[in-house]
Order: sequence, then C-alpha cells, then structure tokens
Amino acid sequence: MHRRAPPSDGGYPASVSALVMLGCGRAAAARAVGSGWWVRCLRGRCRLLLPMAKSKFEYVRDFEADDTCLPNCWIVVRLDGRNFHRFSEQHEFKKPNDDRALHLMTKCAQTVMEELEDIAIAYGQSDEYSFVFKKKSRWFKRRASKFMTHVVSQFASSYVFYWKDYFKDQQLLYPPGFDARIVLYPSNQNLKDYLSWRQADCHINNLYNTVFWMLVQRSGLTPVQAQDRLQGTLAGDKNEILFSEFNINYNNEPLMYRKGTVLVWQKVNEVMTKKMKLPKEAEEKEVEVTRTRTKVVALHCDIIGDQFWEEYPEILDEDS
Amino acid sequence: MHRRAPPSDGGYPASVSALVMLGCGRAAAARAVGSGWWVRCLRGRCRLLLPMAKSKFEYVRDFEADDTCLPNCWIVVRLDGRNFHRFSEQHEFKKPNDDRALHLMTKCAQTVMEELEDIAIAYGQSDEYSFVFKKKSRWFKRRASKFMTHVVSQFASSYVFYWKDYFKDQQLLYPPGFDARIVLYPSNQNLKDYLSWRQADCHINNLYNTVFWMLVQRSGLTPVQAQDRLQGTLAGDKNEILFSEFNINYNNEPLMYRKGTVLVWQKVNEVMTKKMKLPKEAEEKEVEVTRTRTKVVALHCDIIGDQFWEEYPEILDEDS
Amino acid sequence: MHRRAPPSDGGYPASVSALVMLGCGRAAAARAVGSGWWVRCLRGRCRLLLPMAKSKFEYVRDFEADDTCLPNCWIVVRLDGRNFHRFSEQHEFKKPNDDRALHLMTKCAQTVMEELEDIAIAYGQSDEYSFVFKKKSRWFKRRASKFMTHVVSQFASSYVFYWKDYFKDQQLLYPPGFDARIVLYPSNQNLKDYLSWRQADCHINNLYNTVFWMLVQRSGLTPVQAQDRLQGTLAGDKNEILFSEFNINYNNEPLMYRKGTVLVWQKVNEVMTKKMKLPKEAEEKEVEVTRTRTKVVALHCDIIGDQFWEEYPEILDEDS
Amino acid sequence: MHRRAPPSDGGYPASVSALVMLGCGRAAAARAVGSGWWVRCLRGRCRLLLPMAKSKFEYVRDFEADDTCLPNCWIVVRLDGRNFHRFSEQHEFKKPNDDRALHLMTKCAQTVMEELEDIAIAYGQSDEYSFVFKKKSRWFKRRASKFMTHVVSQFASSYVFYWKDYFKDQQLLYPPGFDARIVLYPSNQNLKDYLSWRQADCHINNLYNTVFWMLVQRSGLTPVQAQDRLQGTLAGDKNEILFSEFNINYNNEPLMYRKGTVLVWQKVNEVMTKKMKLPKEAEEKEVEVTRTRTKVVALHCDIIGDQFWEEYPEILDEDS
Repeated sequence: MHRRAPPSDGGYPASVSALVMLGCGRAAAARAVGSGWWVRCLRGRCRLLLPMAKSKFEYVRDFEADDTCLPNCWIVVRLDGRNFHRFSEQHEFKKPNDDRALHLMTKCAQTVMEELEDIAIAYGQSDEYSFVFKKKSRWFKRRASKFMTHVVSQFASSYVFYWKDYFKDQQLLYPPGFDARIVLYPSNQNLKDYLSWRQADCHINNLYNTVFWMLVQRSGLTPVQAQDRLQGTLAGDKNEILFSEFNINYNNEPLMYRKGTVLVWQKVNEVMTKKMKLPKEAEEKEVEVTRTRTKVVALHCDIIGDQFWEEYPEILDEDS
Repeated sequence: MHRRAPPSDGGYPASVSALVMLGCGRAAAARAVGSGWWVRCLRGRCRLLLPMAKSKFEYVRDFEADDTCLPNCWIVVRLDGRNFHRFSEQHEFKKPNDDRALHLMTKCAQTVMEELEDIAIAYGQSDEYSFVFKKKSRWFKRRASKFMTHVVSQFASSYVFYWKDYFKDQQLLYPPGFDARIVLYPSNQNLKDYLSWRQADCHINNLYNTVFWMLVQRSGLTPVQAQDRLQGTLAGDKNEILFSEFNINYNNEPLMYRKGTVLVWQKVNEVMTKKMKLPKEAEEKEVEVTRTRTKVVALHCDIIGDQFWEEYPEILDEDS
Repeated sequence: MHRRAPPSDGGYPASVSALVMLGCGRAAAARAVGSGWWVRCLRGRCRLLLPMAKSKFEYVRDFEADDTCLPNCWIVVRLDGRNFHRFSEQHEFKKPNDDRALHLMTKCAQTVMEELEDIAIAYGQSDEYSFVFKKKSRWFKRRASKFMTHVVSQFASSYVFYWKDYFKDQQLLYPPGFDARIVLYPSNQNLKDYLSWRQADCHINNLYNTVFWMLVQRSGLTPVQAQDRLQGTLAGDKNEILFSEFNINYNNEPLMYRKGTVLVWQKVNEVMTKKMKLPKEAEEKEVEVTRTRTKVVALHCDIIGDQFWEEYPEILDEDS
Repeated sequence: MHRRAPPSDGGYPASVSALVMLGCGRAAAARAVGSGWWVRCLRGRCRLLLPMAKSKFEYVRDFEADDTCLPNCWIVVRLDGRNFHRFSEQHEFKKPNDDRALHLMTKCAQTVMEELEDIAIAYGQSDEYSFVFKKKSRWFKRRASKFMTHVVSQFASSYVFYWKDYFKDQQLLYPPGFDARIVLYPSNQNLKDYLSWRQADCHINNLYNTVFWMLVQRSGLTPVQAQDRLQGTLAGDKNEILFSEFNINYNNEPLMYRKGTVLVWQKVNEVMTKKMKLPKEAEEKEVEVTRTRTKVVALHCDIIGDQFWEEYPEILDEDS
C-alpha cells in the first residue's frame, strides 16, 4: 500500500520559497532545495528542478577574505599558552623549570609536526612553540587561517590527550587555551634571525628565572624582594649571584633549560626482528631487518651560530 | 669568602657582541644583554649599560602583519572538525546522528563562550560551530588571529577534556584536529543570513543523511546503492521515502538533528538554600536565596524566520 | 618566389626553450611561444603546439595579493595633494583661500565622478577630496587598488589638463603629485561621521587660516608672530580677533571656504531648441525640448546635521 | 573701542556641543573646538579648555586598515593605461608603435623615478610601466597605498604636462586614466622572473602587432581578416610572413619596440664651463669642471639573460 507523506510543514524554512511565472504563463510554486529550486505547477501536473548555483543565503560566502600567504616565504606559526602563569601555579609546576611541562609541550609539538604537512623545523621554550613551514609549501593553498588553526588545535587537543603521560597523578583541572600568530620571512637569514631571537629570549628569561627562584626558594626572599634585587642587573651580575651565593655555574644548567628544544626531521635506522623463510632454508628464522624512517628528533643545542645550520643543511634547502 | 663566577662561555650567544669605541677614545667590548648593551672598557676599569631598545634579532618582529578586523562589523569564527569522517568511524559514532558527539560539541562551544569575551551567539551542527563576536568588541584589539586561535584551541582542548563525560567507555584514540576561519559581516541582515545559511545547510544534510542511513541500516543497501537511489531526489522525494518505506515523519525527528544547536546568553534564576541569621531571630535558619545569573543556554529552534530574533532582541542590540 | 625567413636569433629569449622527449622516443626542440610550446622534431619532419597555460615566468602572477573590499561597506577613497604647501607657494596661491585652486580641485573631482563608476557623493576642502563609492558597488570586483589608483590618476591628469582654464596666465611649473588611501565604513552612521569629520576639519583649519593670514597680511605680523598669537586660542577667541581687529564676521565668509564642497548627482532639466517637422505642418519649426539628465552638482552646505541627508535621501539609499 | 564678536551661529556645527556638569556642581555649556572642549560656565564667569584627544567624529580614523608591505621584499608597482585602445585611436597613434607615445611614457617614468624615493629599476612597454622599489626601502613606512598612488598620480600628471613636448600639434583631447597594482617579490630570482615575464610579453605582443599591421596597412586586409590569418600561428610563422611577404627581418626592427625600455640609475660625468679665479692668477678664467651625477638612463636591451644583471650588479645589491 502506498501512503502519501504528510505535508512537510517545517522541513525547509518557509521563507525560502517563492511564486514564479513559468514560460508557459502559468504560476508555479518554487521551493528552494539543496541543489536547486523545486518548481511545481500550481495545477499540479508537472514539476521541475531548476539548478540553483547559490541559495539566497549563500551570498554570505563572498564576505570571507582571501588570506593566502605570499609565495616563496617561510611561514612561521608561533603558539603561546593562554594565562599559563595562572595555569602553572594551579598545576603546581616546578619553578623555574618543570620537566613534565616541557616534555609535554615537546610531545604536542612532535604531534603537530607529524600530523600536519611541510613543517621543516620547530623551536620551543617555556609555554611557546614556533613551527616553520617550508618556503615552497602549497598546503591548503597557503591560507594563513588554515596554518594557524590547524597548528593550535592539534597542539591543544594533544596537550590534554598526553597530559597524564607526563603529569601522572597531577590532575588536569580545566582545558587550557593557546593562541597563535603567523609571520612570513622572505630570506633564510630572516628565518635564522627569527629563531635566534626566540633562543636569545629563552636564555634571557631562563637566566633571570633561575636566579629569581634561587633567591625565593633558597634565600627566602619574597618575590617582590627578589625582583628588586635583580632590577638593573646584567647577565654577568646574575651569573655572579648564582655562583657566589648558590654555588651554581649557570653553564652547567641543563641544556634544555638554557637552549630550549629544537625539533628536526632525522633519518633513523630502526632495527626490527622479523620471522622470515629465507631461500634455500627449510624453516622460518628470526632475521634482523633495518628500516630507514624519517622521525622528529628533539635537540637542545645552539641555533644562533652557524654550526647547527651547517649540520642540518636540508632544513633551509629550497628543494627539500 | 668571595669567589668569582667562572667565565660565561655560552651564557649569551657569542655572536651578539661587538667592539665599540667609547667617547673617550678607548675600545670597549660590548655584549648584548636583555635590556641593553653591556660595555666593558678593555682596560677593565669601568663598564656601563647602554639602553638597547631592540636586540640585533628583534627586527624580525616587524614582519608580523596587522590583522585588525574592521570596526563595527560582526566577527564570525567558524570551526570545523578535521577529517571527522574518519574520526567518527574510528570512534563508532551512531549514524546519522550521535547524541554523545553532538552534546560534546555543544559542551565545548559553551566552554568557548564562557572562557572567551564578547560572544553574543553561537550556532552548531554536525562537526562545525560558528561563534559570533559582538560588533563593538574590542577584545584583543580585534586581531583576527587572536579570535581564531583562541576559539579553536579552547574548543580542541575541551573536546579531549570532556570526552569521557559523554563517551564513557568509548576510548578517545588520538587527539582530534579542527580548523577555523574568520568572516566579517557589516549588517545585522548579513549576520542573520549567515546563520540562516548554516541552518539551511543543517536541514539539507540531515534530511539526506536520515534517508541515506535508513536505506543502509534498514533496507540493507550498500552506501553506493543508497547514494544512487538518492541521486537527483528533492526534499519532497526524501520525505516520501522516509514516510512510505520507513514510516518516519521527518518533522517528528528530534529538533536537535533538524535545527542544530543555538547557544545564547540567558538570565536564569538560581535558587539556593543558605543558612542565615535573620534580624530579630535568635538562631540561624535555612533561607532560600534567589540569584540571577547569566548563563549559556542551548536551544534547538528555527533561526531563519523573524520569531527567534524578536524573542532575543538583545543579541543584535548594538549596546548590549 | 618563396624565401625562408632568416633564423630568429633573438626573437624570443633563448632561455625560454627546452629539449623535450616526444612520445615516439625522439628528441625535439621546444620553444615557448605566446600561447604554448612550439615543439619541432629534431629530424625536421613534424612540429606541434602544446598548449601552455603559463610560461615559465608566469608563476610570478601568483604573488599578487587579493585586495577585495569587504562587501556591503561604503568604500571611501581620500586623495591629498603631495607637498601642496610648497606647490601653492610656487604657484602664488592667494591666502588663505585661492578660488582658482578650489574650483580646479572641484573640476577634477567632477571628472572623477563622471569617468568612474558608482560614486555616490564626494567632499572636498583645501587640497583634499573624498570619494564615496556605493555599498553595493561591484566595480572592478571591489579591488582596493583599482579604486585608489583610478581615482588618483584621473584626478592628477585632470589637474594638469584643466589647469589653464582656472589659472590662465599663471604657468604650471611642474606636474603635481597626489596620494590616496581607502577606508571602508560598514554603516550609514559611520559614513556620515566620516564626512562630518572632514567638514569639521575644514572649519577648524579655515577659521585658523583666516585669522592667521589677516594677522600677517593686514597687521604685518611675521608668520611666527601670528602663530604665537594664535597659540592656545579657542574658536571664540579667533572669532573675536576677526571681528574686533579686522571687522570681519566669520559667519559671513564665503560658504565654500567655511563648508568645503559637496558633489552630488542631481537630475537637471536641460532645455534645448531643436528644429522639427511636426505632423500636420508643412515646414520645420523650432521647438523647445526638455531633457532630464543626471549631473554632478557642487554644493557648499552643512553635511554634519540631518537636514542635508533628509534632502538627499537617495545618497544613502541602498538600492540607488 | 572694544566690540564683542556677534554670536557664532554656524561657526562650529551645533551638534558638536554638550551640556556638562562641572566639578563645582554647576552646569556648563561645552562646545567642541579644534583641540579640545571649550567649556563655559552658564553663569558666564569662567571658562576652560578640556583637552580633547579626539573629536566625536575622529573615531572613523580607526577604520583605516594597515597595508604595510612585508619587509625585505622587492616592491613592484605596475601601471597600465585605462582604455588606451580607444585613447590611441582618438589621438591617432601610429601603428603598431608610436615613437611619440613610447617616449612620452618613458619621460613620465623618469619623472616618477626622480620624484619618488628608492626606485631601483623600471621597465616599460606599450602602455604599461613597472617600478621596482628596493627591498630595504622604508619610504612611507612601506605603506602599499602610498607606493601605488604616488606612482600613478605622478605618472598621470606628467603625461598631460609633457604631452605637447612629444605630440606637438596633436591636441590632447581629454585627461587619460591609469591604474596600478602592487606585488611583492621575496627573492632576486622572483624579481628577475617578473621582469622577464614582462619583457617576454613585450616580444609576443610586438611580433603579433608588427605582422597584424603589415597585413592591414600593406596588404589591405581588414582587421578581422588579419586576425583570422594570424590565428594559431607560431612565432616562426609570423617571422616567415614578415620576411616573405613584406621583406622585413623582425630582428632588425628597432630594439625599443622589441625589448621595451629599461630605466636604471647611472653615474654620468657632466662637463661644465665655469668662470673661476684660480690662485696665483690675477683674472677669472673659464675652467672646465667635471661633476659626477646619478641620472636615470633609458636602455633597450635584453633583461631575461644574465648579461644585464652582471653589468648592473648594483640593482640587486641589498646595500645599494
């Protein structure tokens, strides 16, 4: 038995309909449907589908601006934690550096490099990470919003996802926020100077923080007192305080704290044991198989001098 | 006993140093420090700090472009799941609509509205959500990248954070990605048309998906067969298939599926019980206290017609 | 007699050629031509034209950024004279206002309005002019560079072209320069406020200049003395100086100086005498014919208050 | 005798006034003036000037977008004649090349290079000219609109100004229009490829036009017939037609037509005769003095190959 469907009162918004005049001179009711206008002759005999390139609302798409990045430039996306001062206190980060937090940041950055396309190098310190996309990248037609939002959303979801691997029993109290910006660098020198700027910033902040927290944690100064003490001091002064008062040679502090973290792609040999039946042998045997894979590797080295770039020439290589 | 700090070989990158000529005619070694140049006379007698507005690397900041949004326009950030077709299969989403997934999306959107500033309304369907910032918003000086990345990162971290509240035993297999774009709408009509466009899209997709999955799940068609069957059909045809073959009146399908989700701010009265000592009474008593709070509320209603906008005039109100 | 053309040594740059391997396995010399690659088999027997979407250089087109203006906004192009302080001195402009210069500016602006599309209103004062393109304009796909450069080049060429009509024997000594900028205004109120801002600026400057030049020309003060005298004075003070010292009531100064010039489109009736042979008459007769034309008309009225906008509602009318 | 100025009814628009409450509790009439609010106590005893950073209209300045060009990129402004097809017909340009028109274009381009800052090289052909600003240029803070509009307005006013020097008795009928666009090129290779693209375009067009006009002017074909004849022909075919039918070796055509015009800065020695009184001599004598000046020089050479760039290394030199 065939039953008629009930009249569709609200299936499609009533406003997207119209009365049109057909070529034959008869009136017809037109209703917008997914891919066109569904026109029914009012005498009920015929109907047709007029192709509809755009619904009456679709004009709003034209308001979206083109944000294509200039070709042949390095595309850098730098990400920062939102209110991480408060976040680090609430989650009891060790001061001045919390290994769990730094390793989690790096784990997230690795995930970003592996999940997204065309990232040549990344550099991180504290609660920030910079991702450098290749000059020649055509990923998402070089649309700036795509680069920024894919980086920051993958990083943010990874931060929560991998939290427990690093913070164990320390519960994550709320979902953290991050922001990101995008900057273009036309020349290799500009890019190297950008990364140098971030690593110099790492040094300046870490030296300050190292002394500051020593004064607070070991000398019992209040934060305000420690700040006053450091007001106007130079790098040499801070080194001197560390050495004379706390017997710390700043240069022996962990490289990860002093230099931040550099993520690069590296060919690594993976040795696996496989069961194989070799020719001329009757039985399967365990065989060691070496496979070369390209993996993200974390380094804690100077990237301001030339040595790093001489060791990893493929990063700046236009055709890599 | 006073000990000298060891020479700082790598404290600050060697490259950021220079030999300068002092006014007195003597050469001096200058080394960049955090806030200036630290100049030491080579005869070792004196030193001074020259204020340094910018380190030699800091020029790279000038490459960041200004992305301020035009004032007096609605700012819309629309977020989409990345590869959510694959994600929904791997996490066994119920088809055509998974309540857990839809409610999780809405929970994340609520978090975004509560954590960020100036969002007047949000609209979501499937794996997308649009957030509308007020015309007059001055949040982060209206910088487009700030709007996009704060929205998408807060959403992404919330998605993982609240996952277990909705998916229970269904494990989250990997951190999901999202993208976002930003669009400006100068007039209220443009904004309403934008939201209408998204809700019309919701209707078209949901009607299609409802029939498609009925054909697959109940009639045993393969996806390709179901697609072929629906090729070229109109809304009326699809309603008819649902009714005659599956005894489903599409208009009775849940509003959340057909209309998507609208998030608005609403004043709600919260009644709490407090222990108070009232005047003229000797003992503390339990008293009911009503407090008015503004909360994010989820609706599943038509936003294409005028009725919604007449009920919530404050959304478009310039001064709200 | 058929002669062979000499070998084309430099017709096309040698670099845009290549040796290609044909499907048949033979080498062929390929040379870029206007619309493709001209491939000649090296054994000289055959040749073919491979369509060439882009020459090897044409990739440089992709570096041009999209500068489309946001739809549904007023597009204002404001033009300024370059170094007109010096220009006005060298061409002996009358101070504080030179009628010849002001009328020439307005003539140029009229030419711009007539030659370009979609300009709804223009406003000028001193050496600047603002042109307002309609919200709905689709001229040149709303590309900002097209709006700016067409306005400014048409204005600049007109300035030289019409110079002698206004300056008679005063020779133009060198070609003047102008710059222009573009600004978008989403709402009618924003646009009216923009025009009010320019007219308020006209008032402030003209009042100052009127007093300044009276002090210099009539009281014999040096420019520096006049400036000192006016330092810190208010509008009322300046009115007072004009009245008490020079017997000038500022409000009686010409409107063009005080209000600047507003250019609008107006329907005007043009009466012409035509020779026509009317029906039932034997001979041709002179007949008056009235034709309605839309012309650019110059006004010198207040545009800050409501009255102007009530008189010319079509300027802001979205559908005009 | 001291006379009061008449009340200023329209000096400042009435709308920019307000009634304010003074600290002493008295009402006062406030009126916006150039640099602040002029407040008069209503009892007429006192008045004061409140500094006013911005008038109520000045907020409209914030709608102007920042259009700073990315640092360390070549900035190219390319200018085109508007409707020059029609313009050239109305002014009876000689076809396919009119020396007067080409020389006028080059004169205007020279004026642009001399009047504006930081232009390293320019290239022109037909009714277009490209101006290349130095990578390191800080002119007008690298604002794109300044570059575009200064170039195009200086060019347009020069075109009218110098017209009669080249076109003599041929009257200029109306002021011509031009447009301009701006493109950034990050690397030297990108820039050279841009200029090669324009010169290749010059070659393709000029070869076509040379044959086309021979067919029309000498063989008496109509323009449509000539077009049909050339449809689908290759460079070699066109060379052949020129040679066999018109006895023209295309390679002997003037370089200016085939290569366009390159403008570069060159040191030139200017020898002048000056009257000087030399030491040890009693009388003034005429002495030849040689002065080195940097001038814009026009070349008609290949710029696609390497030779040009080797001859003029200073053009691409970053520090020039």
